Amino acid sequence: MQDDRRKVVIIGGGLVGSLCACFMGQKGYDVFMYEKRPDPRKTAHTRGRSINLAISHRGRAALRSVGLEEIILESAIPMKGRLLHSKTGELQSVLYDPIFNNCIYSVGRNFLNEVLLNAAESYNNVTVKFNHNLVDVDFRREVIQLRNNDTMEVFEETADLIIGADGAHSALRFAMLSTPMFQFSQTYIDHGYLELRIPPELGDKMTPNHLHIWPRGQFMMIALPNKDTSWTVTLFMPFKNFNSLGSEAKIIHFFDNTFPDAIPLIGKEDLVQTFLNTKPSQLISVKCSPYHCGSKFLIIGDAAHAMVPFYGQGMNSGFEDCTILNELLERNNVKIEEIIRQYSKIRVPNAQAICDLAMYNYVEMRDLVNRKSFRVRKTVDEVIFRLCPKTWIPLYNSVSFSNLDYSRCLRNKQSQDKVYNLLVGLFLLGLAYVLFNALN
Amino acid sequence: MQDDRRKVVIIGGGLVGSLCACFMGQKGYDVFMYEKRPDPRKTAHTRGRSINLAISHRGRAALRSVGLEEIILESAIPMKGRLLHSKTGELQSVLYDPIFNNCIYSVGRNFLNEVLLNAAESYNNVTVKFNHNLVDVDFRREVIQLRNNDTMEVFEETADLIIGADGAHSALRFAMLSTPMFQFSQTYIDHGYLELRIPPELGDKMTPNHLHIWPRGQFMMIALPNKDTSWTVTLFMPFKNFNSLGSEAKIIHFFDNTFPDAIPLIGKEDLVQTFLNTKPSQLISVKCSPYHCGSKFLIIGDAAHAMVPFYGQGMNSGFEDCTILNELLERNNVKIEEIIRQYSKIRVPNAQAICDLAMYNYVEMRDLVNRKSFRVRKTVDEVIFRLCPKTWIPLYNSVSFSNLDYSRCLRNKQSQDKVYNLLVGLFLLGLAYVLFNALN
Repeated sequence: MQDDRRKVVIIGGGLVGSLCACFMGQKGYDVFMYEKRPDPRKTAHTRGRSINLAISHRGRAALRSVGLEEIILESAIPMKGRLLHSKTGELQSVLYDPIFNNCIYSVGRNFLNEVLLNAAESYNNVTVKFNHNLVDVDFRREVIQLRNNDTMEVFEETADLIIGADGAHSALRFAMLSTPMFQFSQTYIDHGYLELRIPPELGDKMTPNHLHIWPRGQFMMIALPNKDTSWTVTLFMPFKNFNSLGSEAKIIHFFDNTFPDAIPLIGKEDLVQTFLNTKPSQLISVKCSPYHCGSKFLIIGDAAHAMVPFYGQGMNSGFEDCTILNELLERNNVKIEEIIRQYSKIRVPNAQAICDLAMYNYVEMRDLVNRKSFRVRKTVDEVIFRLCPKTWIPLYNSVSFSNLDYSRCLRNKQSQDKVYNLLVGLFLLGLAYVLFNALN
Repeated sequence: MQDDRRKVVIIGGGLVGSLCACFMGQKGYDVFMYEKRPDPRKTAHTRGRSINLAISHRGRAALRSVGLEEIILESAIPMKGRLLHSKTGELQSVLYDPIFNNCIYSVGRNFLNEVLLNAAESYNNVTVKFNHNLVDVDFRREVIQLRNNDTMEVFEETADLIIGADGAHSALRFAMLSTPMFQFSQTYIDHGYLELRIPPELGDKMTPNHLHIWPRGQFMMIALPNKDTSWTVTLFMPFKNFNSLGSEAKIIHFFDNTFPDAIPLIGKEDLVQTFLNTKPSQLISVKCSPYHCGSKFLIIGDAAHAMVPFYGQGMNSGFEDCTILNELLERNNVKIEEIIRQYSKIRVPNAQAICDLAMYNYVEMRDLVNRKSFRVRKTVDEVIFRLCPKTWIPLYNSVSFSNLDYSRCLRNKQSQDKVYNLLVGLFLLGLAYVLFNALN
């Protein structure tokens, strides 16, 4: 081991943690990754624990950097647009990107995590330990305490860089809460979600290569395809509506009225059983600043910016965190302390922008997509995008199919709104002028 | 001990904790209050640790309920208005309440805490333990773990009601952070504060019975009177400005330019030494919801709603928390679980309103008070208040001299703003009409 080789400790071996381990492993750093749960490759998968994932541009770019894009996309299913289900069962396909034909890709969380763990462990300089909990952080001495849950041994660990990739309920962030000037908010929305399933044998009844949406105003259901031809179906709804569906009769009545075409696909039995036996899960949004602490602590992914899942950017933004950290680490002769400071400066406004956009997109998905005004706007966006593909990138495209800063995507959208409103105003004025002349 | 007698545990023996102990003691409950610091009556006081306190209506009402208003007010100094210091040393008195002559009262934190601790301990059924830390909370079993820091013994404790009055960095709230659906935000503003002092022998050079303000736009200095004729002076300023004052010359230059009349009162030597030897303190604002957890946990005071100090309502709102909890507990036959649920419902929107108002008042104190438009508005407010004292209560008066819900105070202000803007609009229109006629 060279003296100048950097040691990196990563807390959390989920998607972002293990991708980060690959990046750091590739750089030749000595990497130690500690995950509190058992090795997911050796345990049975549980159902209903997570929303399916949609990989888009930022996630792909990060995977490409560590040579994993191909293997992941081979097992992913492209989704070229939204397929809207009306109450009467009519279908309408709305493409994400009719001009450049970009797709997002549905992939299973477990599969992705396993590929990433295998890749991380393939580096000789990466050590992965499961069943290890972060139990304490000493910011003054800049060391952490970990517990091996098999032996219950507690030991100290330190490194040149200590990264918390330990998810929305991050233990490292929890410790950072008590450090000076740490800004933090956690918001639970009053909607929850429940996962249902369309079994493989009925999967071909669903129009392929789409993200299916049943938009219903105050709530919605979505479905994403799996490799085994099954579909993962997720119902998002206010908790109070979930709570009002306490019996088989009520559940069936509710589905009959709002998602009639989904009942034969999910199956009445499975539908009712899932409702009666599962509590809907919560949706948290976390914002904080800065992401670094002292001279070596950093949080990335959900630990830094957990968001509601409606823009499909939770994982993608976490993967982009790794890309950005990696780029900053390329700058030789810059101290870790300065690198993580710059990381916060770059990343905080962008992550806060995507957290806000994710919140907004719930309204778009469950409600706006049903409105004429929304469709008119989408058409106008596409026409101008075709004419000026570099200056008028619609919001969804810049977020999902580019690596433009999220905060820039948001600002562009705000400028576009102003121009659009002006155009609509001029159009109406012109129309009024023509009508006025015609009547005189 | 009767079987039906309620046991209450209070974490934190600061101002709100010990007042709460008085309320609960008065009800005949078995009260155990645990404070992590040593008994302040037996330790030397430290300087510069806290902003002086201003007691107003809500604080007085709570003290009155436990028979302590008189003793506190006897040692407090009435402040009937703001005394504004211009850069050139001119003084202007702006009364808080020229109509009903209400005052706010300056009181020392240490004195107040000692009176409250003595009062709490005067109840046979109240036990106060110092040097006791909350180390763990088990929300499932509804027990807490405490550590006696003298013996290092850790023990379990439980009660019918467990109240966290443990301040802005509350350990109980910290534990609640991980409970489902707990909304939370902590915000540090980028301004800090530094405490200075005008010694007793120079105190009579200050106009008495006022809260002195040196409003300077982006920052300000204030002074509150003490019983020993000294004044506690607090400078609020962006951290970056504090950081730019690293030498004696810079400090003196800064004071010469912005607070020249304060230099001889504070004294150059003391001024420079305090600046060079003290780090400015941070200002935190905390919002969360709900304030209760499970069937017996509740947070009150700063633990639930720490705010910036600019409305002088931090302590007053914490004391009002005790009044409201006390009123709810009067309802016999209502379970604690239901009482704390109702407490959250009543108190969350009001505390969030005063947190917002406190943030706003910094701008008013440091900047708006200097503006003509602000003074015109204040005069208009006073005229209408005199005419309709029940329907047009100016914001400061409803916050400081009434027990109107804080959220109602805020809404009233918003309605008044609309009416005021309408009046100004009509006035300008009338003026234009008169001018137009005069010119024709």
